[in-house]
Amino acid sequence: MNIGEIGEFGLIEKLTKDIALKNPTTVKGVGDDAAVIAAHMEETLVSTDMLLEGVHFDLTYTPLKHLGCKAAMVNFSDIYAMNGYPRQMLVAIGISKRFTVEQVEEIYEGMRFACDLHGVDLVGGDTTASLTGLTICITVVGACEPDKVVYRSGAKPADLICVSGNLGAAYMGLLLLEREKQVFEAGGKSPQLEGHDYIVGRFLKPEARKDIVDSLREAEIVPTSMIDISDGLSSEVLHLCKQSNVGARLFLDKIPVARDTNRMAEELNMNPMTAAFNGGEDYELLFTIPLPLHDKVKDLGKVDIIGHIVEPGQGAYIIPPDGEPIKLQAQGFVHGK
Amino acid sequence: MNIGEIGEFGLIEKLTKDIALKNPTTVKGVGDDAAVIAAHMEETLVSTDMLLEGVHFDLTYTPLKHLGCKAAMVNFSDIYAMNGYPRQMLVAIGISKRFTVEQVEEIYEGMRFACDLHGVDLVGGDTTASLTGLTICITVVGACEPDKVVYRSGAKPADLICVSGNLGAAYMGLLLLEREKQVFEAGGKSPQLEGHDYIVGRFLKPEARKDIVDSLREAEIVPTSMIDISDGLSSEVLHLCKQSNVGARLFLDKIPVARDTNRMAEELNMNPMTAAFNGGEDYELLFTIPLPLHDKVKDLGKVDIIGHIVEPGQGAYIIPPDGEPIKLQAQGFVHGK
Repeated sequence: MNIGEIGEFGLIEKLTKDIALKNPTTVKGVGDDAAVIAAHMEETLVSTDMLLEGVHFDLTYTPLKHLGCKAAMVNFSDIYAMNGYPRQMLVAIGISKRFTVEQVEEIYEGMRFACDLHGVDLVGGDTTASLTGLTICITVVGACEPDKVVYRSGAKPADLICVSGNLGAAYMGLLLLEREKQVFEAGGKSPQLEGHDYIVGRFLKPEARKDIVDSLREAEIVPTSMIDISDGLSSEVLHLCKQSNVGARLFLDKIPVARDTNRMAEELNMNPMTAAFNGGEDYELLFTIPLPLHDKVKDLGKVDIIGHIVEPGQGAYIIPPDGEPIKLQAQGFVHGK
Repeated sequence: MNIGEIGEFGLIEKLTKDIALKNPTTVKGVGDDAAVIAAHMEETLVSTDMLLEGVHFDLTYTPLKHLGCKAAMVNFSDIYAMNGYPRQMLVAIGISKRFTVEQVEEIYEGMRFACDLHGVDLVGGDTTASLTGLTICITVVGACEPDKVVYRSGAKPADLICVSGNLGAAYMGLLLLEREKQVFEAGGKSPQLEGHDYIVGRFLKPEARKDIVDSLREAEIVPTSMIDISDGLSSEVLHLCKQSNVGARLFLDKIPVARDTNRMAEELNMNPMTAAFNGGEDYELLFTIPLPLHDKVKDLGKVDIIGHIVEPGQGAYIIPPDGEPIKLQAQGFVHGK
């Protein structure tokens, strides 16, 4: 169905018609000038992220439903990185003429899937025509008890540096998708992704680590600092160091990398650590805890201790099992490159 | 200065370096995974709006500072339309390579100007590269006492329909700018805007009507419904009717139109009421009040009573001083057309 047939208001109605609100604090969702969130005793967390076609995603290999889901997930991840829980979401979307109503619905389906999984209410947004590519801007509102909010700035010397899951897989997935796209566009065979479900999934369907925030609470651990890994480990560790005014030591042989990530790196003849340190989009949580909590964190079973915080003057270095320390450098993550 | 010279993080630092926080509820602004807003006894209002180059604005005649200011203002307007006050703002911006650091700073300057005028804290956002045009997505967080939030859905039969300021001026300003652009691009004389400051200003520098919300509070008036006029009077009245499940009568000779709007309409040989009803971007407030508050609203001095609400079955009509009632139709506002 052509969007012109039902118009902007028709499209909005279609996209939002059976949104069921899940949170008691959501007083008013979609359909007014602003969403209304009840007064409550927690602090409100707000984060926004813009995703642009050709920069952050490539529709040749990104299913629309996955795109919608990922757009929501990466925003939830920002709220978890504050040790809070996402509660409400607003979606602004710019759609070019080549999109059909069904395609926009697919994007929303993905967003709803993510919202349902994380107990988030879709409470508002903006739908507009775009002359160029697809543009998605998501704002997430979260909540956290005032004494549990974790900033990037609280890391102290001797704190342990922890990371959830494993790193570099999403970047290897992206490299594979890009390679297969190039082969295909050059008239070669259609994309061969078999056996690479894991890394492709990590790129196309990242999971925001609600479970880690849950586990930390159950274990009564409040990290001293936390950030989510969107730009690669190097960049995020340097953010924590800068904002906490400390240095860091990371042990190269402690960095968690999945077997499939190593396998793909070998196939591409590259060092998997490049993906872990300078890749991106893993959306794992990086956090610091006081040294005495070592055993408690180990007991969580799903977090690796990869290093420790040092005094500010000592800089940030990777320590290989043998050889010289390597100065940590933020290359950031060039999306789509 | 080329943005590449200082990079994304350098640009963010430059843009946010001397942001002073104004609101006691702003616990943490720019620089973490999310902004943090203190728990408070008011309800939180959240609204988001996306502005795309070529769709919502034309950089040939929109100064960047004005653009930044307007992008913020139209979002504040949504919060005022809930009878609340904007407190925090997040800015996601997609910038193409052709922009310099100074140009992005200009956009931010405009946003800051608006924020200072309205007591809003810039607390976060996202800065990204765009392959195409400039993309701005603003999210505003506001606050309102729970018993004072005004929805679109509360209008009752016999309520008076009120509007602030005057209508159609922004649309006439847009038509003038478009005309002068076409003349100029066809090799004609440079834009002649002299004597048209008012209508051009209404389009390029709209003001969100904080003063109306202030005045309503001082007079202890809580509207039964409210909306801001972004798409033209017709569209907004129909929104109120639909969401309140009522009809409406608007008196054509009560619609406030400025002298300069009339003058320009005459020059372009069009009916100024077309601009008032189907133009847009006036960002005035349209609201309904119970009939007994008639004198109180009149005494405000800056609001016109333009009609009244009727039973749902009676539809929405414009009543001319002579002649047949005209059925209200929402053409919406086609931006840039």
